[in-house]
Amino acid sequence: MEINFDEIQVIGFDADDTLWVNETYFRDAEEAFADLLEKYETKNKIDQELFKMEIKNLELYGYGIKGFMLSMIEAALELSNNQVSQSTLSEILNLGKNMISHPVEILEGVVEVLERLKGKYRLIVLTKGDLLDQERKLERSNLSEYFHHVEVLSDKKEKNYQDLLDHLEINVKNFLMIGNSLKSDVLPLVNIGAKAVHVPFHTTWQHEEVAEPEGKSGYMTVAKLTDVLNYL
Amino acid sequence: MEINFDEIQVIGFDADDTLWVNETYFRDAEEAFADLLEKYETKNKIDQELFKMEIKNLELYGYGIKGFMLSMIEAALELSNNQVSQSTLSEILNLGKNMISHPVEILEGVVEVLERLKGKYRLIVLTKGDLLDQERKLERSNLSEYFHHVEVLSDKKEKNYQDLLDHLEINVKNFLMIGNSLKSDVLPLVNIGAKAVHVPFHTTWQHEEVAEPEGKSGYMTVAKLTDVLNYL
Repeated sequence: MEINFDEIQVIGFDADDTLWVNETYFRDAEEAFADLLEKYETKNKIDQELFKMEIKNLELYGYGIKGFMLSMIEAALELSNNQVSQSTLSEILNLGKNMISHPVEILEGVVEVLERLKGKYRLIVLTKGDLLDQERKLERSNLSEYFHHVEVLSDKKEKNYQDLLDHLEINVKNFLMIGNSLKSDVLPLVNIGAKAVHVPFHTTWQHEEVAEPEGKSGYMTVAKLTDVLNYL
Repeated sequence: MEINFDEIQVIGFDADDTLWVNETYFRDAEEAFADLLEKYETKNKIDQELFKMEIKNLELYGYGIKGFMLSMIEAALELSNNQVSQSTLSEILNLGKNMISHPVEILEGVVEVLERLKGKYRLIVLTKGDLLDQERKLERSNLSEYFHHVEVLSDKKEKNYQDLLDHLEINVKNFLMIGNSLKSDVLPLVNIGAKAVHVPFHTTWQHEEVAEPEGKSGYMTVAKLTDVLNYL
């Protein structure tokens, strides 16, 4: 579906899996977690229980690696009926620490797109991860120079976006969001009257999955990030 | 020391131990943590080791309860030489969860001060805790209506404040910060040319302690928050 880009002045970029790889490392950590606990349960059951624990704790911990680490510890204790060894728990802590220290892998086309858009629009990073973690990734990625600033939202629902646009004094009609999550980066924006471009990533966290709505206008899906340069 | 309040347009309020009680709950959790591990070490040694672990992990985890929880787990494993029981580790997780869910205790004078300042200045919450945690406390405190918005900084150093004022397009001379930490809420502001009011809280985390500088201008210390109403 085509959208009108003429009024766009400010562009929000999602960070994880839009600017750089993220979900892949969570999948890797989940694999390693299941391997560590394989004597207690099947891999499938471990995956399910970890996911259930993350969702149960989401309200308390929010998004990001630290909450994921705490949920892994709690799930390991529960799944093993308190039999998991202390050294395995240390290894689980290390899985998380390695995720935090992981080098940043910038996705294809990102630098080209930012280079072309800078100066023409005000560019903002808009993420719901952990602030320190996202600032660190931005710094390591050497992409800071392209962005006006970083905004971390505790969630990416309509109200979070509306509050943000209000406090930044940005009119919704001048705002475009670009991201990989239909649920978090696209639909809430369209629902408040802003515009969005959906750039799918090959891996999506189960919690972020949502059905593609029919006949919804205000956003478009592109196959790769550089496709936005045909419009902006 | 007196400072000139005439040019102030925007006031940043620190949150923890300025608007509501915080440090007290960390002290309580540390007590409970030491009790849980008393068979492995003296209370004094446990306190020291936990603090060392927090500082070691600070760069990785940043500030907030989740990082504190992860450091408690790691310190418990290390202090006990991997002997700490799985059920004790579950209790440690619960200590942290209880901190997150703790009701908010608003400090004396806060409502009176905000009531008097609203409308006259743009008021912002400026904290370095965890975004979700701080938003939740603001909501539970019913103080949201007084604030333009909440800003969470990954740290409270000069650069963090300067970047924030730049992106909010606030001139340093129009900005006043009010908070309980000389190190985080006062000195960095004075160093970049803004103003600050220091309202000490009875308990300060060791990491936040700093010597009072001599002959430094641009800030004042008041005995209680309502004292600012004599100037604003």
